[in-house]
Amino acid sequence: MHTFEIKRHVEYYEADTTGKLTLPMILNWAVLASKKQSDALGVGQKIYLGRGLGWIILQYEVHITRRPKINEEITIKTYAAKYNPFFVSRPFVFFDTNGNEIIRVDSIWAMIDIENRRMARLPQDIIDKYQAERVKQIPRIAKPAQFGIDDVFEENDYHVRYLDIDANKHVNNSKYFEWMQDVITPEFLATHEVTDINLKFENEVRLGHTIQSQVILQEHTSKHRIMLGDVVSAEAEFQWRDVSF
Amino acid sequence: MHTFEIKRHVEYYEADTTGKLTLPMILNWAVLASKKQSDALGVGQKIYLGRGLGWIILQYEVHITRRPKINEEITIKTYAAKYNPFFVSRPFVFFDTNGNEIIRVDSIWAMIDIENRRMARLPQDIIDKYQAERVKQIPRIAKPAQFGIDDVFEENDYHVRYLDIDANKHVNNSKYFEWMQDVITPEFLATHEVTDINLKFENEVRLGHTIQSQVILQEHTSKHRIMLGDVVSAEAEFQWRDVSF
Repeated sequence: MHTFEIKRHVEYYEADTTGKLTLPMILNWAVLASKKQSDALGVGQKIYLGRGLGWIILQYEVHITRRPKINEEITIKTYAAKYNPFFVSRPFVFFDTNGNEIIRVDSIWAMIDIENRRMARLPQDIIDKYQAERVKQIPRIAKPAQFGIDDVFEENDYHVRYLDIDANKHVNNSKYFEWMQDVITPEFLATHEVTDINLKFENEVRLGHTIQSQVILQEHTSKHRIMLGDVVSAEAEFQWRDVSF
Repeated sequence: MHTFEIKRHVEYYEADTTGKLTLPMILNWAVLASKKQSDALGVGQKIYLGRGLGWIILQYEVHITRRPKINEEITIKTYAAKYNPFFVSRPFVFFDTNGNEIIRVDSIWAMIDIENRRMARLPQDIIDKYQAERVKQIPRIAKPAQFGIDDVFEENDYHVRYLDIDANKHVNNSKYFEWMQDVITPEFLATHEVTDINLKFENEVRLGHTIQSQVILQEHTSKHRIMLGDVVSAEAEFQWRDVSF
């Protein structure tokens, strides 16, 4: 197993009103660690793009013990854990300077053919570099809880903005966390802290689309859907605990 | 004069669809450099917040020779240039690894009383640390070009989101650049690059507000206003050049 780590320092513009790292930045840092590992192993973006392939994330499971504060130094460790011909599982663990694990992200990745956006078989020479364990079946992450057909939900519209699109010409994954969080009232956010997120991507959204971020909030659980018209773009389930900031 | 510098590496989530550093990140990095200087001089946030004071930016003038690409290493140098009892002028210069100046930001800062949001006199012991030149009058930055009363403009609504608010409980300044840029068509953005921005802040907007980002685009100049109802929140003028990405 080839493990890799990066260090990041929490800057003021990476923190929200609580002074702690934003939810989207947690995901950005995780993806950054995996990108830098791929670069270090000589199988970075140039290599897979050159073959018409791209990595995509299918699902995230995030467990947050605590979010780091502005000026904290964080180490993020990652490795490709298991793979089969189509999927890779990859954990990311965030440590503070005392060596405490403060955030853990599990993720499932796949490769797509850039042209037709269809799932592609993982090239053996690329996957070999990560020294992951080959398995028949990748350990699944449970599906997020579904919306019931009669459930009452809140929703807001969000326009996909120019700056939501990254250099891969697709919406940055972390934007989904922003849309999901933003639909929750500031009053709730001021008195609750996320402990767990399970997010599953279903269909891509694009620049100029207007999506609906829907939420059902019940005590310490929120169920989320990102809808593009009648099509589910992503689903998630968040767990919350009471806090006083 | 006490000059200070920081180094930053452009990460994928700090770049837009062109693969280059976003406009908002230019401002975030500039402000970061000044914050770290203040910390280094022992007059950081704890000190001025402890006296009920906060720094605010009144106006920015940005000149962009080129925006750095993902994975470039950038050095940002800054110093407090001139001050009088109420204002400080501060340049920021961005250098690439070859020592070429690629971006320059001029800015005018003031301090406010946090409670009543009124302008405050700069405490002499704080300002002394920066070893700036005391002057009668700070060199002014020209006002951005105004909207004519009969001018036809385009506009989009933007809701101030939870993540637009930073740890100071105010909208991160850099969000204005996002609102101003986003109202321009992707077709124009795909064929033009900003060379100059002059942005003047007028009135604060807050969480939950819906602002109108208005633009008049004429060849290589765009005039911008951020409106909260009838109140001008910020005005700006952008210069653009033709490019093919």
